[in-house]
Amino acid sequence: MKNTRIPVLDKGFVELIDHMGDDHTIVSAARVSYLQESKGDEKDRSLVKYMLAHGHMSPFEHVIFQFRIKAPVVVWWQLVRHRTFSFNLQSGRYTAFDDNEYYTPSRWRIQSKSNKQASELGQFAERINLDGQERSIQDIYKSVFEFCFEIYEELLRNNVAKEQARLILPFASLYYTGYVTADLRNLLHFIDLRSSQEAQYEIKVYAEAMESIIKEICPWAYKSWKEIKCAS
Amino acid sequence: MKNTRIPVLDKGFVELIDHMGDDHTIVSAARVSYLQESKGDEKDRSLVKYMLAHGHMSPFEHVIFQFRIKAPVVVWWQLVRHRTFSFNLQSGRYTAFDDNEYYTPSRWRIQSKSNKQASELGQFAERINLDGQERSIQDIYKSVFEFCFEIYEELLRNNVAKEQARLILPFASLYYTGYVTADLRNLLHFIDLRSSQEAQYEIKVYAEAMESIIKEICPWAYKSWKEIKCAS
Amino acid sequence: MKNTRIPVLDKGFVELIDHMGDDHTIVSAARVSYLQESKGDEKDRSLVKYMLAHGHMSPFEHVIFQFRIKAPVVVWWQLVRHRTFSFNLQSGRYTAFDDNEYYTPSRWRIQSKSNKQASELGQFAERINLDGQERSIQDIYKSVFEFCFEIYEELLRNNVAKEQARLILPFASLYYTGYVTADLRNLLHFIDLRSSQEAQYEIKVYAEAMESIIKEICPWAYKSWKEIKCAS
Amino acid sequence: MKNTRIPVLDKGFVELIDHMGDDHTIVSAARVSYLQESKGDEKDRSLVKYMLAHGHMSPFEHVIFQFRIKAPVVVWWQLVRHRTFSFNLQSGRYTAFDDNEYYTPSRWRIQSKSNKQASELGQFAERINLDGQERSIQDIYKSVFEFCFEIYEELLRNNVAKEQARLILPFASLYYTGYVTADLRNLLHFIDLRSSQEAQYEIKVYAEAMESIIKEICPWAYKSWKEIKCAS
Repeated sequence: MKNTRIPVLDKGFVELIDHMGDDHTIVSAARVSYLQESKGDEKDRSLVKYMLAHGHMSPFEHVIFQFRIKAPVVVWWQLVRHRTFSFNLQSGRYTAFDDNEYYTPSRWRIQSKSNKQASELGQFAERINLDGQERSIQDIYKSVFEFCFEIYEELLRNNVAKEQARLILPFASLYYTGYVTADLRNLLHFIDLRSSQEAQYEIKVYAEAMESIIKEICPWAYKSWKEIKCAS
Repeated sequence: MKNTRIPVLDKGFVELIDHMGDDHTIVSAARVSYLQESKGDEKDRSLVKYMLAHGHMSPFEHVIFQFRIKAPVVVWWQLVRHRTFSFNLQSGRYTAFDDNEYYTPSRWRIQSKSNKQASELGQFAERINLDGQERSIQDIYKSVFEFCFEIYEELLRNNVAKEQARLILPFASLYYTGYVTADLRNLLHFIDLRSSQEAQYEIKVYAEAMESIIKEICPWAYKSWKEIKCAS
Repeated sequence: MKNTRIPVLDKGFVELIDHMGDDHTIVSAARVSYLQESKGDEKDRSLVKYMLAHGHMSPFEHVIFQFRIKAPVVVWWQLVRHRTFSFNLQSGRYTAFDDNEYYTPSRWRIQSKSNKQASELGQFAERINLDGQERSIQDIYKSVFEFCFEIYEELLRNNVAKEQARLILPFASLYYTGYVTADLRNLLHFIDLRSSQEAQYEIKVYAEAMESIIKEICPWAYKSWKEIKCAS
Repeated sequence: MKNTRIPVLDKGFVELIDHMGDDHTIVSAARVSYLQESKGDEKDRSLVKYMLAHGHMSPFEHVIFQFRIKAPVVVWWQLVRHRTFSFNLQSGRYTAFDDNEYYTPSRWRIQSKSNKQASELGQFAERINLDGQERSIQDIYKSVFEFCFEIYEELLRNNVAKEQARLILPFASLYYTGYVTADLRNLLHFIDLRSSQEAQYEIKVYAEAMESIIKEICPWAYKSWKEIKCAS
């Protein structure tokens, strides 16, 4: 599982760099309350489910994942709000942005009617009128980036500070690469929130990639969490 | 002090919404270790300085500030990385951006020669060549926003979801309004980092505004912190 | 409400020292996502309930309470595990313990049959056999403290370090006084856990005292939280 | 290094259960700001030192250690105050205490004259007067535990709840076993505080055991941290 990159969106990825612990770690941490450890697979597995079902989440903090993630700022913008995670990110003050390192949605979603902050499922826009002409959104999008990157690069050539030149770029679309370290308790909470119907598609697919990694490393915890989630 | 807006940058502000505690709160929290409280102003003041000088910072966690802040995303992008703070922010998924709610730098700083991630002090660019023409950066900047907002608004009129339409905007410059609640210990740490020479000017001025509020509410802590900072 | 001490157990208390914000703070923080504030009491109240019911808890972090608490170590031992709280406590390394500042249970609970870590409801022990004699637990308890405090005080008279002399005392029963600062989000979570049937009686009564303070300061949030809790 | 128990005090230990990452992890996390990784041992090592010397500590959060620790409550009482650590501990509500699982100091330290909360270096008490008789502190200590455990066990035989019966024991001396997971940034901070002259001997020796493990796993970070510490 380590060092396999799961592709996400058009140019992003989630890569498991390292992890500490697995299902057995949860069991040992839980059973330390009465100074015991494993009682065999069947009982251990039940215990993991019991802990999840009753919200006894502290034993899940001893299982840790380190990811390398490449995602557009619009995703990081939501990701960095998870304050128990540890982050180190590429710096736009330090490193110039590359003119093809931005996210292009494969489809343009329609605003949801029922939920003011979300998109409608399965409905898309393709063309809009601009300056009296009907044009594809994809073409317009591309031309915005070409226009903005041309200026950005000219600003850099004129020695304008990178920390300021980036103000001119469609920042939310730029890909940033970074490290994220998080424990299983808080990762499951993150996935709960960010794989929900309310979540923005762009972060949902990152949550799903992390979910698939957790499924491999902690199959007991994953299966129970999924069952509890589906039952509720 | 409450409900006074300190203007920051061209359209931003820092406003103290509420606070809990002051210098005396620090003293009481510190002296609970031996079940005492105030010993008079002079001794109390010395105690505050002693705690700061020796890194005994836990008593400073009981003094809390709630701010309402309006700042460009480039500032929030750094602000939200302070993981002990509590945040609630305007949502670009929920609320459409207004075409004049973006930050225009008054000056374009030159990249620092010695520090790869910072700007040179007191050196500015004004004009660059674009398409064979010398033009003012300010004019170009304005035209980028006009161009991008025209498309953004057309996308919204065509019912493209706000969460996706924003990908086309120069996101880092957009003003977001939000609430930030933080304790004095972590605020002083924030100001230490973000008012340093290495910090980006745009966040520095927000750190300074918060500093001026702390100075009013906790004059003893502020003065000692400043003295210790200057001496080191 | 401020500076009123709610008596808890035989010699303890919970005292509200200060607080920041109330129900309206939650509303403002929640509505900043679309740049609005109050919409009148009825709608505001519904919003608070909606946030609680859907687990949108970040707006509750801007309401802060500072308590002064006097509780036996057995209570603090559980209290300090709430890692989002800020603490400053009396120091047993610094301050000698007073020979009547310990907790005496009014009743001795029977071990639960169904729950290995809890007590049976409403069943108590009063007398046990010791050295062939039937004696009241209260009398034995008192004599243990007299015996241990006599040695503790003799150790101090002989200049043994306080940090070590305390090893001889029935530490879990000693009253410690301290400050606790916590936000409403994490306080409600604390009360959820510590006022449950599973919780130890000694901490439950502290959770209830804090609950009664929250009820006064944030009646909307409190009522909704209670309704949701009872419905689930 | 894994699964080796370092003995601490008379019956305690620190055992490295697992760890994630090492010096190279710090380097990768630091260099992601400009999208690079290793530049060879010499430069990588310098970078680690530079980060430590300038307080750029976020890259150290991606190196994680999980310990199994057996320590008296007086040590845990201080350890659990480190709120970034994850803990799972033996439960005195769940598990009866064993009558020989308590800490006996090898020496009884004298109260410091200059520091109200610490012990004098290298000065010890051995005998005190009790009931008109000169007796060794060790003998008295032992008899207190025999006396208290006799009552404790009688309470349990009479079915008094374990959560309450423990009130009668010299709780601070009882050994508890637990898991502690912490990142390198916060571990170094912990060791800074708890291996200082001001720290209580009993926790100092645990901090030293953790230090010796860090030294093995992260020799670059350790050496630099030590040099910077000694120079200041």
